[in-house]
Amino acid sequence: MRSHYCGQLNETLVDQTVTLCGWVHRRRDHGGVIFLDLRDRDGVAQVVVDPDTAEAFANADRARSEYVLRIQGRVRLRPEGTQNPNMPTGLIEVLAKEVVVLNSAATPPFQLDEHGKVGEETRLKHRYIDLRRPEMIEKLRLRSRISHSVRAFLEGEGFLDIETPVLTRATPEGARDYLVPSRTHAGSFFALPQSPQLFKQLLMVAGFDRYYQIAKCFRDEDLRADRQPEFTQIDLEASFVEEADIMAITEAMICSLFSDVLNVDLGEFPSMTWHEAMQRFGSDKPDLRIPLELVDVDDLMKDVDFKVFSGPANAEDGRVAALKVSGGAKLSRKEIDEYTKFVGIYGARGLAWIKVNERAKGIEGLQSPIVKFMEDVIETLLDRVGAQDGDIVFFGADKARIVNEALGALRVKLGEDLNLYTCEWAPLWVVDFPMFEADDNGRLSPLHHPFTSPACSPEELKANPAEALSRAYDMVLNGTELGGGSIRIHDQAMQKVVFEILGIGDEEANEKFGFLLDALQYGAPPHGGLAFGLDRLVMLMTGAKTIREVIAFPKTQSAACLMTEAPGEVSPEQLKELNIRLRQKAKAEDSE
Amino acid sequence: MRSHYCGQLNETLVDQTVTLCGWVHRRRDHGGVIFLDLRDRDGVAQVVVDPDTAEAFANADRARSEYVLRIQGRVRLRPEGTQNPNMPTGLIEVLAKEVVVLNSAATPPFQLDEHGKVGEETRLKHRYIDLRRPEMIEKLRLRSRISHSVRAFLEGEGFLDIETPVLTRATPEGARDYLVPSRTHAGSFFALPQSPQLFKQLLMVAGFDRYYQIAKCFRDEDLRADRQPEFTQIDLEASFVEEADIMAITEAMICSLFSDVLNVDLGEFPSMTWHEAMQRFGSDKPDLRIPLELVDVDDLMKDVDFKVFSGPANAEDGRVAALKVSGGAKLSRKEIDEYTKFVGIYGARGLAWIKVNERAKGIEGLQSPIVKFMEDVIETLLDRVGAQDGDIVFFGADKARIVNEALGALRVKLGEDLNLYTCEWAPLWVVDFPMFEADDNGRLSPLHHPFTSPACSPEELKANPAEALSRAYDMVLNGTELGGGSIRIHDQAMQKVVFEILGIGDEEANEKFGFLLDALQYGAPPHGGLAFGLDRLVMLMTGAKTIREVIAFPKTQSAACLMTEAPGEVSPEQLKELNIRLRQKAKAEDSE
Repeated sequence: MRSHYCGQLNETLVDQTVTLCGWVHRRRDHGGVIFLDLRDRDGVAQVVVDPDTAEAFANADRARSEYVLRIQGRVRLRPEGTQNPNMPTGLIEVLAKEVVVLNSAATPPFQLDEHGKVGEETRLKHRYIDLRRPEMIEKLRLRSRISHSVRAFLEGEGFLDIETPVLTRATPEGARDYLVPSRTHAGSFFALPQSPQLFKQLLMVAGFDRYYQIAKCFRDEDLRADRQPEFTQIDLEASFVEEADIMAITEAMICSLFSDVLNVDLGEFPSMTWHEAMQRFGSDKPDLRIPLELVDVDDLMKDVDFKVFSGPANAEDGRVAALKVSGGAKLSRKEIDEYTKFVGIYGARGLAWIKVNERAKGIEGLQSPIVKFMEDVIETLLDRVGAQDGDIVFFGADKARIVNEALGALRVKLGEDLNLYTCEWAPLWVVDFPMFEADDNGRLSPLHHPFTSPACSPEELKANPAEALSRAYDMVLNGTELGGGSIRIHDQAMQKVVFEILGIGDEEANEKFGFLLDALQYGAPPHGGLAFGLDRLVMLMTGAKTIREVIAFPKTQSAACLMTEAPGEVSPEQLKELNIRLRQKAKAEDSE
Repeated sequence: MRSHYCGQLNETLVDQTVTLCGWVHRRRDHGGVIFLDLRDRDGVAQVVVDPDTAEAFANADRARSEYVLRIQGRVRLRPEGTQNPNMPTGLIEVLAKEVVVLNSAATPPFQLDEHGKVGEETRLKHRYIDLRRPEMIEKLRLRSRISHSVRAFLEGEGFLDIETPVLTRATPEGARDYLVPSRTHAGSFFALPQSPQLFKQLLMVAGFDRYYQIAKCFRDEDLRADRQPEFTQIDLEASFVEEADIMAITEAMICSLFSDVLNVDLGEFPSMTWHEAMQRFGSDKPDLRIPLELVDVDDLMKDVDFKVFSGPANAEDGRVAALKVSGGAKLSRKEIDEYTKFVGIYGARGLAWIKVNERAKGIEGLQSPIVKFMEDVIETLLDRVGAQDGDIVFFGADKARIVNEALGALRVKLGEDLNLYTCEWAPLWVVDFPMFEADDNGRLSPLHHPFTSPACSPEELKANPAEALSRAYDMVLNGTELGGGSIRIHDQAMQKVVFEILGIGDEEANEKFGFLLDALQYGAPPHGGLAFGLDRLVMLMTGAKTIREVIAFPKTQSAACLMTEAPGEVSPEQLKELNIRLRQKAKAEDSE
């Protein structure tokens, strides 16, 4: 029906006749002439309808906002002085010969350029209108390009796209499963997969060698600010590989993607151990765009006359760390109070600080509520963090976990607030993760999942599980975990040791993962892989602020779709077929 | 870990050192030397291990069937007389220098080359072993290539890959939905989509213009021989299009796919109205590889003295049709009896026939239980069907629906049994479908779905709904419906008329599709699309006999996964969280 998309028009088409289809983005009447901004997914073009073309004019005259039109006309340069250099099609306009109203439109619940004035609820309810906004179309278009670029790369590397089941058995990620009652097996339930983890390992056992899938995954969790009950993973796995193989291929994939889609060269990714990341940045996904670092000062604080510092400095699980912010002495008392409140979220009981006004003046040149307790060590301390006039030094002192979380988060917040970024993109690998993490009772749980291979022998693992490292790796970009993976256990004996350490008995292991354990005994190759969160990757690449901006039909934080009103009620017959009933109504129904 | 896949080895690599990884496919000891056939996803290579390389030999000696090995060695030509021309790597072998056992393997539940001897249940239970069969790997590899080829084509045509929700509201296809209880909205349920139909229409309303998705769809049906509860569609939709646009682009897509993957030129697809397809082939998805056609003979049978024929010939809803099979006179009485039984499945109460032994002899040259009733018309009849000596003519006489189904199916069966195929691939379009079909009570239901646009105005549709044609089209290949689609209704008034005719009241329409009706009023563009069944397409292209051969982890006919034992039991706590309980146990639990 069309010859060009609106956004494709430019000066090279002057004097040509074009046919456009689209929506009335704006309409103005000026000097007896109608000006229509016609919008399609590629952009907006200005259409001029003159009263001379009577039928076209009459139709244009009927047209209101969001009417659907087909327009035929001649491209011409806009008259001098009416050009719009801010608009890709701003040098030309289309003089209409024919205007056809393909469909009318009721007044939309909100104008596209006034979407900010209505709540997100209204926009989600009328998602098909909200999606008309050019920036929304652009984000989903980029998402499509991202998926395609990733696929093209992986296909080129010999990965096979293999679909794994959606109706399946509970997977071992540990979050809550979505369940699907089975009609043919009364009383039994499918689970929707939290990831294709077990299936991709089985594909390796089957010999597919290189697998990938852009797969929907599901978690019935209480949704934090930016989660969705269904999300998408770029999932891959390969056989006969070691860490370096998977890391090389996925790094190349992400580099190729950024080059393809954003024309950005990410360069070579640095690699950092988990331990180093925690020490220097207080985080296992440090944002390396921000030049701030945590500096250990435990040794200096062991003997200071300030329990808040000396306590953690002497405790085995304690940490005292400093975070110097260049130029931070200009922060106001109010701002510092707010940062104190901020670190409180992470359990910190306060935020000590020293402003360095004039180092040459010694203690007199410092401003701080705590400096009086540490006069003996102050010079060493300031030297160690490299403090100069105009800087501020923050301190965290508590259990190491709390110091890391609090100062790690503060570091990111300061980076944002003070715009400390030194570059646009900062990728890195985090490696050498601990195999397990201990809860407060010392109970171990897997840091990744129980199929992650340890970096040591079964005997060494048994002897000292808490210290064991795993063969896991995370790819981090700008402080976001893009993806994580590991070399898996391919040896049944090793898998049993891990289950043992996790307190998963033979019976439970067999019940949950019996088919995987079975598979491991029939010739499982060494294998490993990685899974990327596609939604988060798209967010980063499109600069989206919420995950809902990069999903066509997202759910709210209570896991509902405001547009379709899902979830909804179902009939008693349907429930009966599925052999279930609602709890709340169970008693009333019992007479049936 | 490897330098080559096993299947990549050939004579050009002679004298080179290669590293292979794979599974022991076969092992033979011969003259003190060990011969291993090493298998990976690309093929099998012969490895020779000599006792001179002591460590390699000791490791090879441990290796049993399905052990996982890494082998380093030198490629050499096989000695004269031991070459295997049936094997792609049959001219060479690898003389091992190093053999590493990467993993051992218990004796598998069945040997790959003896899979035929075990039941499908055993193979599905140990799917990761069954998938090791080279033909299974090949089918899934082709499936991956098919998906990729389709994607590449559609991306090139400007279609955007957009994901639609899996947790959604009941869709209007009419089959039974899989339901997912909501935890956060007690008593409410999500449905898994039977197709992305409504969402893709909404994407058109939103202005995405061209959408595609390779989407998982779900139907909780009683599984016939070859259905799966979850299946995959190549789904697409475009705006500002007419039938010819969608047909042209999808025909080009399938042609490009066949050319890409099978190196087959499908040529231009013929197009046929639904009416013609039913008349000539008794089917709306005729297999045009088979040259047999149904020929109307109602006019000849109106006055014959044989009620079985004259009845339907005179009835308004009756049909008498002939099906001539060249050379079919050689069919035995027993074979004809079997075909009679076969058409009985479709409701035919018999299968009349005439064998043409020698036309020149007139009635004497014919053999038939019925020819005596139709002596007056026999010559005209034989002329009309073009019967020659050695042919057989079958007849169907009943309600048109039964005649079409019975002779349509017989036609296909004869084509198979007698191998009448005239070509390998016979694609076509079927168009001009009726808008509705009537059940025995005259109640109309949509032949496609209620969003299909009629080919007439709302007024004409209202006046004569039973005769109205729709703007639907099906792509058929070798008697299989590859895909179906239509131009959709984009006008709210038309949509209301269709709901009215279907007896869907305003309230029901609003309840079920309110959001679509809403969307139609805010400026819906003309749009249409098509959905292909990917599983069926892959079956056709790989020559698979069941759908389970082209799905990595399929379910059985009772919708269970024998490998993971899904569906399975869940804990009472999980059910409680979801506000449901099992019916069977509801009374016992009531004391809670």
